[in-house]
Amino acid sequence: MTNLEQMGQQAVNAKYEIQLLTTERKNEALKVVANKLIEKKAEIIKENELDIQAGKEKGMHSGLLDRLKLDEGRIQAMAEGILQIVDLPDPIGQVIEQFVRPNGLQIEKRRVPLGVIGIIYESRPNVTADAFGLCFKAGNVVILKGGSDAIHSNIAITNAIREGLKEAGIVQDAIQLIENTDREVTKAFMGLKQYVDVLIPRGSAGLIRTVTENSTIPVIETGTGNCHIYVDEFADLKMAADILKNAKTQRIGVCNACESLVIHKAVATEFLPMAKEALSESQVEIRGDEETLTIIPDCAKATEEDFGTEYLDYIISSKIVNNVDEAISHINKYNTKHSEAIITENKENAEKFLKGVDAACVYVNASTRYTDGFEFGFGAEIGISTQMLHARGPMGLKELTSYKYAITGNGQVRP
Amino acid sequence: MTNLEQMGQQAVNAKYEIQLLTTERKNEALKVVANKLIEKKAEIIKENELDIQAGKEKGMHSGLLDRLKLDEGRIQAMAEGILQIVDLPDPIGQVIEQFVRPNGLQIEKRRVPLGVIGIIYESRPNVTADAFGLCFKAGNVVILKGGSDAIHSNIAITNAIREGLKEAGIVQDAIQLIENTDREVTKAFMGLKQYVDVLIPRGSAGLIRTVTENSTIPVIETGTGNCHIYVDEFADLKMAADILKNAKTQRIGVCNACESLVIHKAVATEFLPMAKEALSESQVEIRGDEETLTIIPDCAKATEEDFGTEYLDYIISSKIVNNVDEAISHINKYNTKHSEAIITENKENAEKFLKGVDAACVYVNASTRYTDGFEFGFGAEIGISTQMLHARGPMGLKELTSYKYAITGNGQVRP
Repeated sequence: MTNLEQMGQQAVNAKYEIQLLTTERKNEALKVVANKLIEKKAEIIKENELDIQAGKEKGMHSGLLDRLKLDEGRIQAMAEGILQIVDLPDPIGQVIEQFVRPNGLQIEKRRVPLGVIGIIYESRPNVTADAFGLCFKAGNVVILKGGSDAIHSNIAITNAIREGLKEAGIVQDAIQLIENTDREVTKAFMGLKQYVDVLIPRGSAGLIRTVTENSTIPVIETGTGNCHIYVDEFADLKMAADILKNAKTQRIGVCNACESLVIHKAVATEFLPMAKEALSESQVEIRGDEETLTIIPDCAKATEEDFGTEYLDYIISSKIVNNVDEAISHINKYNTKHSEAIITENKENAEKFLKGVDAACVYVNASTRYTDGFEFGFGAEIGISTQMLHARGPMGLKELTSYKYAITGNGQVRP
Repeated sequence: MTNLEQMGQQAVNAKYEIQLLTTERKNEALKVVANKLIEKKAEIIKENELDIQAGKEKGMHSGLLDRLKLDEGRIQAMAEGILQIVDLPDPIGQVIEQFVRPNGLQIEKRRVPLGVIGIIYESRPNVTADAFGLCFKAGNVVILKGGSDAIHSNIAITNAIREGLKEAGIVQDAIQLIENTDREVTKAFMGLKQYVDVLIPRGSAGLIRTVTENSTIPVIETGTGNCHIYVDEFADLKMAADILKNAKTQRIGVCNACESLVIHKAVATEFLPMAKEALSESQVEIRGDEETLTIIPDCAKATEEDFGTEYLDYIISSKIVNNVDEAISHINKYNTKHSEAIITENKENAEKFLKGVDAACVYVNASTRYTDGFEFGFGAEIGISTQMLHARGPMGLKELTSYKYAITGNGQVRP
């Protein structure tokens, strides 16, 4: 048995304990863990400094170094994040449906934990605590594989959480961290189907692609968002400009930011200068199709690739269409099934867009930036699912569960 | 673009049409398709004869030949299966949840089709019609890959369905069959992630393993069932013997048949001879652990492998345990998360078993043979899911859907 398989077996052993814990026991443990993170902050910061030092030596750029950095405030925030999870309702044990069959069998569909969740993530060490908190509250065990850049921080955080669990009398293997960050180990982890029930990658498009291509464990694909705003011929153009500005520039590097503008030709001449103005404060570059160029000639020409790109930058593509159907086709061709918006005062077009656009979240007259677990009222989230199976959109506690059928009879046999 | 990619693109084009069809249109089309199958029965039977002939030449054994064989009655049954789907409620468009956020955003969680479903199956040609009917009613498009043994039958059935669709004015690519049954083509199909949303393998454990190991498309794992019956110390032993007989022998080659018997030591001496008697009519071989052997010495000794085997045959393993906790651990160690039963009059043990056993369907005092879409009242089923994600247990129409969030605002932007 390899080291990884041993971790897998330990996780399976732990899951049968964790899934039986009462809500009270789980909440108590989360509180102890939150306190333990604060208690251990000096050690965590010390280990984090090793990562920062290594990052600097590798020439890591300042944005990444900032994401990697832990200080008292960020550790406090990590602990508070866990305490917020305490306040969320426990999804486990909920009876989703119940029915009685003509033969007298009573069938209950009960919400249960997924089991062992594997999480593969990149440099942000706070994911270690967040992911544990959410998975644990939903009765799951986690095996974490963080990036090599944050390995000292991740070990320190995991150790603090495990100490907290021990103090709370909970099996420590509710969280395990893979300390060897070699590529080969990561690949072997993705083959641990016998032990791991679900794998969730959190990070760049490249990471997610690697995981979906190599994992034999079922994957929940999260993440990339090539989100569109379609300004319909019946749009309130002032509202459209405000929403565009918000969706594109309020936070630039996030998956629910707008990357593509689609405009009905009837309002393009009036709206494009308004769009340019709205985006000018942040100096957003517009890359337009030919018709866009005829209206605002000083912008760059959009290539086929532009329409399919999640820029995560101060760039936006622009496409002019003849009607809402063409807008829907364009979006379905290029989007990543994340978040899409129509701005219109016309109910029929709104409903057409809601029905026709293939995405986890489809908006009428609101910013795509609302695709977020907190904004949906789910509390913290583990990510935004962009696949069709299991869960779509923001994934909170409920999305970290499965169900089982509990069937009670009095001796029924099948005729 | 390869031939397969072309099929993928055609499926994607078709899905945007199919997912917008009203229930009435879908039902009408299903009726036309059912009639068309009957109209084309002579052609289908003629093509089926080619498969039967080839099977005989290959020395296919009689059980398989029988599964492959189509006659008027079976084609009639296929058509009736499709007509039954007409009567099932349409899950699409259902609003699963709705809520309003403090900022006024109205959020609707709407049920939508999965999109393009790939199905890889083995020799039974009736799967072609069944799978189409279920997927289509739930608004999905299918790409089918059947076994080479049934290729002539599958082509004939698919052609009939496509003709029916054409007659009903529906895009024919709602169903496509991969006619090239080479291994390499199947492998390429499993990599068609860009076009296919979900892959469902239907068939042997080997087929399912191949698919989960090679697919980059999300897979719904169906199938294998190493199902246990645990006879508790508080069991009604007569009931236990009846349920055991039913679960083991009523139909031998199915995934919800019982493969393993677990008995509380307090009742083993009394129950084992009853079990032997109940199974004797079908001449079931019992393979027991050492304690079983002390009670019924003429049975074979069970190996570690026996406890993990889905026999699909007149064989059962037997294990004696000290208490319900040990029964749960034994089952969780060896089961395939399909269907498990406890026979007991003790409510506490029943609930412990329901909570502790990790399986899609957990029974108290009933036969595991009830794990079935019809028996659950779902109507026809596409398979029994044994994984944690998306759906567990019998998968009917609802399990062939996903959801999207439709969010309506009046200009909300994120602060």
